[in-house]
Amino acid sequence: MLEKALKEIHALDEKVMSEAAARVNQLIKPPGSLGQLERLAIQIAGITGHVHPSTKHKTMITLAGDHGVYEEGVTSNPQEVTYAQTILMSKGLPGVCAISQVSNATVKIVDIGVKVDLPDDVNVISRKIKYGTNNISKEPAMTRKEAIRAIEVGIEMAEIAIEEGAELLGTGEMGIANTTPSTAMLAVFAGIDPESITGKGAGTGKGGIPHKVDVIRRAIQVNKPNETDPIDVLSKVGGLEIAGMAGVMIGAAKNRIPVVVDGYISTVAALLAVKLEPKVNLYLIASHATEEPGGKLASELVGLEPVLQMNMCLGEGSGAALMFPIIDAAMSMMNHMPTFEDVGMKI
Amino acid sequence: MLEKALKEIHALDEKVMSEAAARVNQLIKPPGSLGQLERLAIQIAGITGHVHPSTKHKTMITLAGDHGVYEEGVTSNPQEVTYAQTILMSKGLPGVCAISQVSNATVKIVDIGVKVDLPDDVNVISRKIKYGTNNISKEPAMTRKEAIRAIEVGIEMAEIAIEEGAELLGTGEMGIANTTPSTAMLAVFAGIDPESITGKGAGTGKGGIPHKVDVIRRAIQVNKPNETDPIDVLSKVGGLEIAGMAGVMIGAAKNRIPVVVDGYISTVAALLAVKLEPKVNLYLIASHATEEPGGKLASELVGLEPVLQMNMCLGEGSGAALMFPIIDAAMSMMNHMPTFEDVGMKI
Repeated sequence: MLEKALKEIHALDEKVMSEAAARVNQLIKPPGSLGQLERLAIQIAGITGHVHPSTKHKTMITLAGDHGVYEEGVTSNPQEVTYAQTILMSKGLPGVCAISQVSNATVKIVDIGVKVDLPDDVNVISRKIKYGTNNISKEPAMTRKEAIRAIEVGIEMAEIAIEEGAELLGTGEMGIANTTPSTAMLAVFAGIDPESITGKGAGTGKGGIPHKVDVIRRAIQVNKPNETDPIDVLSKVGGLEIAGMAGVMIGAAKNRIPVVVDGYISTVAALLAVKLEPKVNLYLIASHATEEPGGKLASELVGLEPVLQMNMCLGEGSGAALMFPIIDAAMSMMNHMPTFEDVGMKI
Repeated sequence: MLEKALKEIHALDEKVMSEAAARVNQLIKPPGSLGQLERLAIQIAGITGHVHPSTKHKTMITLAGDHGVYEEGVTSNPQEVTYAQTILMSKGLPGVCAISQVSNATVKIVDIGVKVDLPDDVNVISRKIKYGTNNISKEPAMTRKEAIRAIEVGIEMAEIAIEEGAELLGTGEMGIANTTPSTAMLAVFAGIDPESITGKGAGTGKGGIPHKVDVIRRAIQVNKPNETDPIDVLSKVGGLEIAGMAGVMIGAAKNRIPVVVDGYISTVAALLAVKLEPKVNLYLIASHATEEPGGKLASELVGLEPVLQMNMCLGEGSGAALMFPIIDAAMSMMNHMPTFEDVGMKI
């Protein structure tokens, strides 16, 4: 199914993009003066094949998973927070939910690998691949088969949301310790030592960043991921929710729906998706610049330019949700502003 | 009236800010992880005196005025565009209106100095001080009395909007050639030659940027504004809509209402307001980083840190309007996220 989905990702509609660009240049403003809003409107026209697309119906897909590498003491947060925060997300309470309210976006929470079972009566979509990944500093995070299935869960989630009417997707994650596998994946894909790209995440453990660097180095040494095989990298040093987010992006691209990338972990997921199929990149929209030191490199490798400088590092999809109204503004520009001709003015 | 308004601007409510900061730190997220949203929520608590303020009702005040220095050929745009665009704004069509729709903000258009009379039946508030400023490269832009009255118009506009229920204001402008007086004011306040801070605005005239620099230098040489007297600087090398925007900020501060600064011209207006009363700064919220070369210096002098990197240079208040939903997100964080205690979790 993954193979098939990747094959169904095509280039943007250049003809519609030209039409959209022509319209943008005729709107009652100096050409180019709405900068990134213009770029977004043209991109979304190319994605959807419509000069006047809608992004009214938005869905944030936040995937939760645990990480075996937690036991190496890479984070100051208790592992139970993944479970607890997933429950809270199902009730619409955490940051991503509060921010999503502003643009009236639906938030869907997916258990793709939380370490314990969630109660049956919570509003969480259950797609658990396994009870957290294995400890990557000792063994592969998951099997190759599990890695593929985790990506396919993301594709499925995107397709369900789109079937339900979503015109714009966002991706987010919840997974204590997940900056560790993210940084391991980024180091492998970039072919660099993890030291310069390892940060504090949501708080490092006792050994601080040096210990975290050491754990990431070990994960790479023990597993020897093949950087030319993205699934190998994911299965050996990745995470289930990272796979799922990449899947959401692939699912969005396959269905010609724009998808907003959140911060560091989400951008590493985007890198994975783009390594699987470079054209996924055309369907991605950047949001905020993460505080993590590897964020800039990850964005560059994917080809994303974050426009929000919010000093945020919450994850969950919170930065992507903050981008939703900016995208609405681009649509409002395209759909509500007249051209000079419309108002009878010459330029 | 201006003197009186300035005296009624007080410091923020430190007690409420401490309460707000304490609450922000107890919300179900790692402390600090929502970055600028946290800072905004605390600032707005201090401004309004409420830990749970509302910014639901928003008003953008866009002031239009013409510039005598237009005749020096500093811009590629016809002067009539000020008039034409003001009419279009009264119909809700240009960029600031399209972007304001996203956050359901009211847009008010004020004629503070358009060169010609506007029709009576358009939705523009008439507060014309004069039919455009004088040519600053030859004489003062306006009299000292006119400068003060123009600021007072802005105060009045802010107070009317607040009386009508506005909980958040934004400022914008429309005035062909107005980057020229803005840059002249900035050069005087910063005590520097205009060359390094002069940009293309919405398009320079035939002589390009060097000619614009030359005109600005002449304006300063001819008028010799006293940089320690902000009204002198405004009246000699400023503009009517710049004065009005400073007035909106002063009116907001006096009434303890947050006000969003737009791009370059708006930031120079903020600098004027802050020169008149430094505490105005506490009530200002930055929006987007302008493309104009002087923008960074102006922001630094006012103490603003733009968070949106949109490559926008439209003016009208378009960047400030784009900031409205970001501020709503900060309010949603404060008003909808529970604390760890609320959900029965220990940290």
